[in-house]
Amino acid sequence: MEQTDVSSIDRLILDETFEMDMKEIRSLGYHTVDIMVDYLNNIRHRPIFPSKTYQEMIQLISEPLPYDAKDPHEILEDCHQKINANSLQIGHPRLLGWMLTSGTPISAFADAIASLLNQNVSVSGCTAATTVELLVINWIKQIIDYDPEAAGILVSGGSLANLTALTVARNNEADVDISSQGMNQKRNNMIIYVSEEVHFCILKAVMILGIGTQNIRWLRTDKHHCLDIHDLQTKIKEDLALGKHPFCVVATAGTVNTGAIDPLDAIADICQEYNLWFHVDAAYGGFAALSKTFKPYLKGIERADSIVLDPHKWLFISYEAGCVLVKNKTLLKKTFTMDAPYIHLKKNDSEKDEEVNFSDYGIQLSRQFRALKIWMSLKQYGIQRYQHMIEQNIHLAHYLSALIYESNDFQQAAPIGLSTICFQYFPADLLQDYKKKNESEKEKINEYINKLNQVIIERMHYDKRALLSSTILGEQFVIRACIMNYRTTKQDIKNILDITRELGRTADKKLRNITS
Amino acid sequence: MEQTDVSSIDRLILDETFEMDMKEIRSLGYHTVDIMVDYLNNIRHRPIFPSKTYQEMIQLISEPLPYDAKDPHEILEDCHQKINANSLQIGHPRLLGWMLTSGTPISAFADAIASLLNQNVSVSGCTAATTVELLVINWIKQIIDYDPEAAGILVSGGSLANLTALTVARNNEADVDISSQGMNQKRNNMIIYVSEEVHFCILKAVMILGIGTQNIRWLRTDKHHCLDIHDLQTKIKEDLALGKHPFCVVATAGTVNTGAIDPLDAIADICQEYNLWFHVDAAYGGFAALSKTFKPYLKGIERADSIVLDPHKWLFISYEAGCVLVKNKTLLKKTFTMDAPYIHLKKNDSEKDEEVNFSDYGIQLSRQFRALKIWMSLKQYGIQRYQHMIEQNIHLAHYLSALIYESNDFQQAAPIGLSTICFQYFPADLLQDYKKKNESEKEKINEYINKLNQVIIERMHYDKRALLSSTILGEQFVIRACIMNYRTTKQDIKNILDITRELGRTADKKLRNITS
Repeated sequence: MEQTDVSSIDRLILDETFEMDMKEIRSLGYHTVDIMVDYLNNIRHRPIFPSKTYQEMIQLISEPLPYDAKDPHEILEDCHQKINANSLQIGHPRLLGWMLTSGTPISAFADAIASLLNQNVSVSGCTAATTVELLVINWIKQIIDYDPEAAGILVSGGSLANLTALTVARNNEADVDISSQGMNQKRNNMIIYVSEEVHFCILKAVMILGIGTQNIRWLRTDKHHCLDIHDLQTKIKEDLALGKHPFCVVATAGTVNTGAIDPLDAIADICQEYNLWFHVDAAYGGFAALSKTFKPYLKGIERADSIVLDPHKWLFISYEAGCVLVKNKTLLKKTFTMDAPYIHLKKNDSEKDEEVNFSDYGIQLSRQFRALKIWMSLKQYGIQRYQHMIEQNIHLAHYLSALIYESNDFQQAAPIGLSTICFQYFPADLLQDYKKKNESEKEKINEYINKLNQVIIERMHYDKRALLSSTILGEQFVIRACIMNYRTTKQDIKNILDITRELGRTADKKLRNITS
Repeated sequence: MEQTDVSSIDRLILDETFEMDMKEIRSLGYHTVDIMVDYLNNIRHRPIFPSKTYQEMIQLISEPLPYDAKDPHEILEDCHQKINANSLQIGHPRLLGWMLTSGTPISAFADAIASLLNQNVSVSGCTAATTVELLVINWIKQIIDYDPEAAGILVSGGSLANLTALTVARNNEADVDISSQGMNQKRNNMIIYVSEEVHFCILKAVMILGIGTQNIRWLRTDKHHCLDIHDLQTKIKEDLALGKHPFCVVATAGTVNTGAIDPLDAIADICQEYNLWFHVDAAYGGFAALSKTFKPYLKGIERADSIVLDPHKWLFISYEAGCVLVKNKTLLKKTFTMDAPYIHLKKNDSEKDEEVNFSDYGIQLSRQFRALKIWMSLKQYGIQRYQHMIEQNIHLAHYLSALIYESNDFQQAAPIGLSTICFQYFPADLLQDYKKKNESEKEKINEYINKLNQVIIERMHYDKRALLSSTILGEQFVIRACIMNYRTTKQDIKNILDITRELGRTADKKLRNITS
């Protein structure tokens, strides 16, 4: 458009708005709440796994780009009927698959408020949101007894949190200026040490950072599925001898497969000895520190250079809420601060200079107000109730373990780690004879048990009364329960085992053609 | 804990839950809505910029890690009084600073539902959320006439979207396997071309990817602040002659400073000629394609290898909602797919195999249900009203331009780009004489005008009736208005200019000691 005069452009503008009447907004809000309550009220009774297939869902949802406006109440009803009703019932007391958590209801209300305030928690003026985020991060540091001077930032989850921490580690540990010169000025390979049980998001981070997944040293694990520190020492020495550049060890506090906690204190010693960055992925296990009973297992975490914790796991916060902490604030800021004239206010007051700008602490510039739901949830339940709930989740895993122990047709496949337990359904007749079998017969039985448990997990998706996930441990296909659910009771655990047994028996009959 | 029997562990478990009574949840939800409505109802009347300083906010919010449980209604009131009331009033019709948008109310309600459903939009079983995200991405592709076969994913915003796209570009364009071997196996520098007006998140991405910010070639811009394609060609040839490896050009559709759109079609030609990855950062400008009038300015965007658009900008969606599109789905999947035994279901049905798993399309594994608020907002207003609103925002920028043109004490500092206009307050007496001055006198006046406009922007934060941001163009400190607000009317624009003039006159008097 060319330069024009006021009167001619004036005519073009009709002063339309998207503004809604306040009564209408309130009614839409109440309608939303009613739908939410209806959803929650039925969460125990709806099938856990959605019935519709992917193709059926695509068909149900499919619709051309909408041209005309539509009554928002109709849209809400559509959402309720089509989307909510066909969602995975995360929060169902018998859903213990993956690492999904039952989000607190107040998380959802906090998210509504955060969304309405629409603060960009990087921008000057979004001071209230910034201070709430700083407070929540301070609380998290206190929970794990971390350095009060450490810096932290909330991110979408473990993947971004680990990427953020490892970016700092890479830039700080390299002997060239990676930030400006790039990784290809680095002549020897930077080596990162992880156990076989590390979360695969570490691989993604290593790929993104240009370190190269070949430069990951995979360390053996012991019988508890924990990182073997002798293997760590051996491999560091080997790499040094080869002229490589060891720079970082990733320890896990709560592995995804078995909930194992690596020997943090011993790893910290080695990192100190060889001057390596000590990173702890405590996305799952970090908040076990809330329990006095289980906190000792995390000893050494306070020595980490960087730590990842996920409030959207064991703080029962809804997605997304991840957190990364870096002990040395200066290194974090040095890594991510990039100036641009359009961002910062002229800072005249000395006071202004102290204001944290979270875009200097991480990757994002536009950032939603994630802290609010953590702030509200921690305040609503208080640390005491959180402590009980986390302990109860762990005790429920031990309860399941005891049930398995006292049964004649289940077998635990790994030690319990935090609230995670891996096991197999093992038909009583096969289990009874197992020890007497020779190696080749055992192998055949094991193969069959793997197949059988795979079928059980598949059947669970059709049965929909309970939902567990699975993983592979060594040669074993195992069923995996991760109890991170504030609704699960002892009765639910009993039911889950009974359902698994029922599905197992049916599958076993079919697979072995047993006629009863 | 050691292996224990059922009865002894049974006693430890009290079956506590965080469950709330449904009546209580409904009442808490209604309370939330009431607070939200009260906030919106006052958004035009509250001071735009919060009154409390950073230190005051820290004091107001400060509180020890809460040990005891608390009535959630009290927490909501606390939030309303302390946080909402002290937030930046994003959405206020006279807030045209930075690139902040007035979020649709239905975004907030959608976020509440998404948070309650707590779907992890990477996990099998979260099929409903996955299909809604796929639908929304298809809609976005249609809006910009992009390849229907292109892949896309919703992310937190432009920073992550650009990082995602450039990861694919780097891995695909390198002549070594960066993913496994790392960037330090790359012997010559990978060069990326950007204009001086590129968003600084591109620098962060280049830093993270290990490309090195020194390997950014900064291209001149023309008088419209658009990337100079002659400079692009020259620099590519230079780099090739030096044995470097040119691999990517980043074009911007809607620069942050002036809203300029780079010559996309001409850049696409050059990328084709030299076989470079063509990336378009259309975080701001992409949705101008909704307007038939302004769509032609985006010609060439459909030729991009990857595109970034931010629904949390010109679709008026609340934070966070970014989107990245990659034309070649295979390259995107190849970059981000990393398998782990605990994630995937055994896929028996051929149908299952087709299901998109968004963790293969990007960095995150845990992913919130961002698509819902976009789905609801697009349906509520429809494309037709969106088209009008975006055009109106652009027309309001031209209206402001016309007011400035017809004034005797303002001067426009750059051509309008989309809905962004940069200008300076320029006291009438100085402006009138300006042309007659010699160069050294002009320089002095310019210096003074810079200082004066800086003071105006500072004063706006205390005045709180209007809020614009600022930037630096060449030697000029300019006031910047980015109109991405569905509440702003012609009257608001007039008021903003009047307020700026009033602040300018006061500051001018003080700075020049004029006694009137």
